[in-house]
Amino acid sequence: MSTTEHTSSFHMTPGEFRQFGKEMVDWIADYYENIEQFPVLSQVQPGEIRAGLPDSPPQNGEPFDQVLQDIENLILPGITHWQSPNFFAFFPANTSGPSILAELLSAGLGVQGMMWITSPACTELETHMLDWLAEMLDLPEKFRSSSTGGGVIQDTASSATLSALLAARERSTNYSSNDIGVENNLIVYASTQTHSSIEKAVKIAGLGKKNLRLIEVDEQFAMRPGLLKAQIQADRQAGLVPCFVCATVGTTSSNALDPVREIGEICAQEGIWLHVDAAMSGTAALAPEYRLIQDGLELADSYCFNPHKWMFTNFDCDCFYVSDRASLIKTFSVLPEYLRNKATESGAVIDYRDWHIQLGRRFRSLKLWFVIRHYGVEGLRFHVRKHVNLAQQFASWVAADPDFELAVSPPLNLVCFRHIGGDEVNRQLLEAVNQSGKLYLTHTSLDDRFTLRLCVGQTNTEEEHVRQAWELLRSTATNISQT
Amino acid sequence: MSTTEHTSSFHMTPGEFRQFGKEMVDWIADYYENIEQFPVLSQVQPGEIRAGLPDSPPQNGEPFDQVLQDIENLILPGITHWQSPNFFAFFPANTSGPSILAELLSAGLGVQGMMWITSPACTELETHMLDWLAEMLDLPEKFRSSSTGGGVIQDTASSATLSALLAARERSTNYSSNDIGVENNLIVYASTQTHSSIEKAVKIAGLGKKNLRLIEVDEQFAMRPGLLKAQIQADRQAGLVPCFVCATVGTTSSNALDPVREIGEICAQEGIWLHVDAAMSGTAALAPEYRLIQDGLELADSYCFNPHKWMFTNFDCDCFYVSDRASLIKTFSVLPEYLRNKATESGAVIDYRDWHIQLGRRFRSLKLWFVIRHYGVEGLRFHVRKHVNLAQQFASWVAADPDFELAVSPPLNLVCFRHIGGDEVNRQLLEAVNQSGKLYLTHTSLDDRFTLRLCVGQTNTEEEHVRQAWELLRSTATNISQT
Repeated sequence: MSTTEHTSSFHMTPGEFRQFGKEMVDWIADYYENIEQFPVLSQVQPGEIRAGLPDSPPQNGEPFDQVLQDIENLILPGITHWQSPNFFAFFPANTSGPSILAELLSAGLGVQGMMWITSPACTELETHMLDWLAEMLDLPEKFRSSSTGGGVIQDTASSATLSALLAARERSTNYSSNDIGVENNLIVYASTQTHSSIEKAVKIAGLGKKNLRLIEVDEQFAMRPGLLKAQIQADRQAGLVPCFVCATVGTTSSNALDPVREIGEICAQEGIWLHVDAAMSGTAALAPEYRLIQDGLELADSYCFNPHKWMFTNFDCDCFYVSDRASLIKTFSVLPEYLRNKATESGAVIDYRDWHIQLGRRFRSLKLWFVIRHYGVEGLRFHVRKHVNLAQQFASWVAADPDFELAVSPPLNLVCFRHIGGDEVNRQLLEAVNQSGKLYLTHTSLDDRFTLRLCVGQTNTEEEHVRQAWELLRSTATNISQT
Repeated sequence: MSTTEHTSSFHMTPGEFRQFGKEMVDWIADYYENIEQFPVLSQVQPGEIRAGLPDSPPQNGEPFDQVLQDIENLILPGITHWQSPNFFAFFPANTSGPSILAELLSAGLGVQGMMWITSPACTELETHMLDWLAEMLDLPEKFRSSSTGGGVIQDTASSATLSALLAARERSTNYSSNDIGVENNLIVYASTQTHSSIEKAVKIAGLGKKNLRLIEVDEQFAMRPGLLKAQIQADRQAGLVPCFVCATVGTTSSNALDPVREIGEICAQEGIWLHVDAAMSGTAALAPEYRLIQDGLELADSYCFNPHKWMFTNFDCDCFYVSDRASLIKTFSVLPEYLRNKATESGAVIDYRDWHIQLGRRFRSLKLWFVIRHYGVEGLRFHVRKHVNLAQQFASWVAADPDFELAVSPPLNLVCFRHIGGDEVNRQLLEAVNQSGKLYLTHTSLDDRFTLRLCVGQTNTEEEHVRQAWELLRSTATNISQT
């Protein structure tokens, strides 16, 4: 490091970047090698991390070595380790070496992909990767860029669901052309188990929670199509306009699979937009034997799944497909003079800024390119199968233990289960295992009962981790029962 | 690399990660050292990048060295080099060594910051950095977390503007509590020069473009407060409900500064939510002599600026502040059972998922932490001043040249100018300089005239680059005039 060079420009020099960059790479590699030594769930109290930070920003730059040290001292205690093989909470947000390096490259290139012209590779690699994934998952032809539809990377399934709802609203009302506000008569349908993002989307789109119909579910917590159909008919009779149905393939709560084909047939008859949210579970379709989760998907108008959950691609990376890209573009397109350019006006290119809420966008498809090329389709399939098998193995232990029970038969990699001692025992059990630092689980409520969830999907989770989790749960439950 | 290890798990081993990670760091350092050798604006044709990629994904994993080579061969020709010191188009999206390394760390840690409990450090460092920035920019006290408001990192100013509009809609209608859809009588105001994201936000929120009032501007392209007031009164008389005003500090088109104080006083009298969008120009307030751009900001309900534009922090990182965080949280909060936890219920923590559209979120405050600590306040100020001075120098050359004219007096780092030969000459000039590969400029329309824009803000832009740009523009214009 040349002090003169530094103080004259304040910039990190290329030499410093090489040095600190390599130190950071080693730091991350060390982190993954030691990750099981940290408590999975951070054990700090509210305010503890802030208390370690200076009240005011530094007037003058500090040595970068000091910053690197402070990661260890000030940040790490406040990390809940999503990349630990003992993380079984919520959904996975798994990552991998190739994905981390792609994120580094994306940051290094620092391009804005808002339009084709602002970096053609950013747009074209994205289109290509979304088509690759359509092939890998055997998605319906209409979702490919060579057909009437296509795919785009969104940040999250929440944004994808909102985008789908807005496109459905557009199709129902011809809203953009009419320039008018939304009418209060558009009705949205989802199951009682649908992710909270649907309620958020309905609120954002101005439809009002009153116009959201939550359809009851069967004993597997999947939407009951008969009730959906009856509700749609009742709404039509009341003079309302059924607009949008969100079916979920793998609910957050219990991994329930809504019957997409039956729901799709109703939507097709009724002319209602069908969105299928497969945020985590969509990845399972990499393996042909799990493709039953996509049965009827050719009836959907839009679809999303998140490689940032279960495909070793770090957040954010939600893949959102539509069967009719024109309706999506009509929903979002605004073209001010300062964004006009020949490529856009030629119509020969895609400008992804018209496919979502944001204008600016990062070069996220590099992550998919690196991950797919590194693992190959076979490598990815191997891990999906392994995670499902580990979850099924855990479920078999639960089922065989007289003190525990399955809350529902697990279709894939998420197991919902309980100790038979009732809600309070399960609450204590959850608290105790999480406080141990040895693993992190979360809960849900099924049939009004407090239910534990164990989701297998972290990159480095092996049989030993699942086995240790089970042993810890059993021994902790024994202790609780004895006190 | 151990082949056995690789084929048995398909994962990149820690050893491989160290090796390829360091190669990637060197690749990025080399890229910045050689960046001026590439044409700034990518010269590929539509479809050219895709044509270089295999139609189908690989069934088996490929060696990572091959992937690294393909960046050079297949991707780089399709890059428009936003990080080139000769990039003067749109707005900057500047980055820096510390920011790139923070993004690497964020990807490595791979945490989800949706709630405090899911990584306390992700939430607390963010709150702390937003408070640091409030101090650095001398923002009104009410935007700090210790007051009634607070800040949050959003992806883009588009999302921040939408969030502000939704909170305003909530305040006007008590929408969430009423569960009803939005009424068609809420009116939104912005100037004719406001960014296109306001129209997009109005559409998304279901208010309808018909309810967006674009107020005329003065000769500096700033909103005329008298016309705003008259329009509000007319709307009230027509039985409509004025709801939201967006003032811009530094418009995209010409860097015009709306008079925030006068607009704010009107909004205060009328009880209308005022959002101030300072996406690029907000960074200027690091230097006390430019803080006039914030005059009256204490009258605003919300504010945003983008460190990912002009503060060496790579995309995405928009800082969004509200003076009343309760109204924002009420807009977005939905709490399903599977997200419930003790920390949230204690009320002692912030859950940022309730501050924006998405549920999932990355650990983006690491970028601000690294950048602020590396540069110090003085280092950041140095660069803001340098960029403004370079733009002013360019403007002085334009003003002194009889063949060119300034379209407007540049307040900060964006110069709008024209050749005096008329629209067609300026169009040809823009096309020619961009095709040369030596720089990248974009255009706008001011007073219905085709106008060139030169924005100084890339991290490594020095006087020589601005001088070369001016010389290329002059010599190219001479050639065009002679043919």
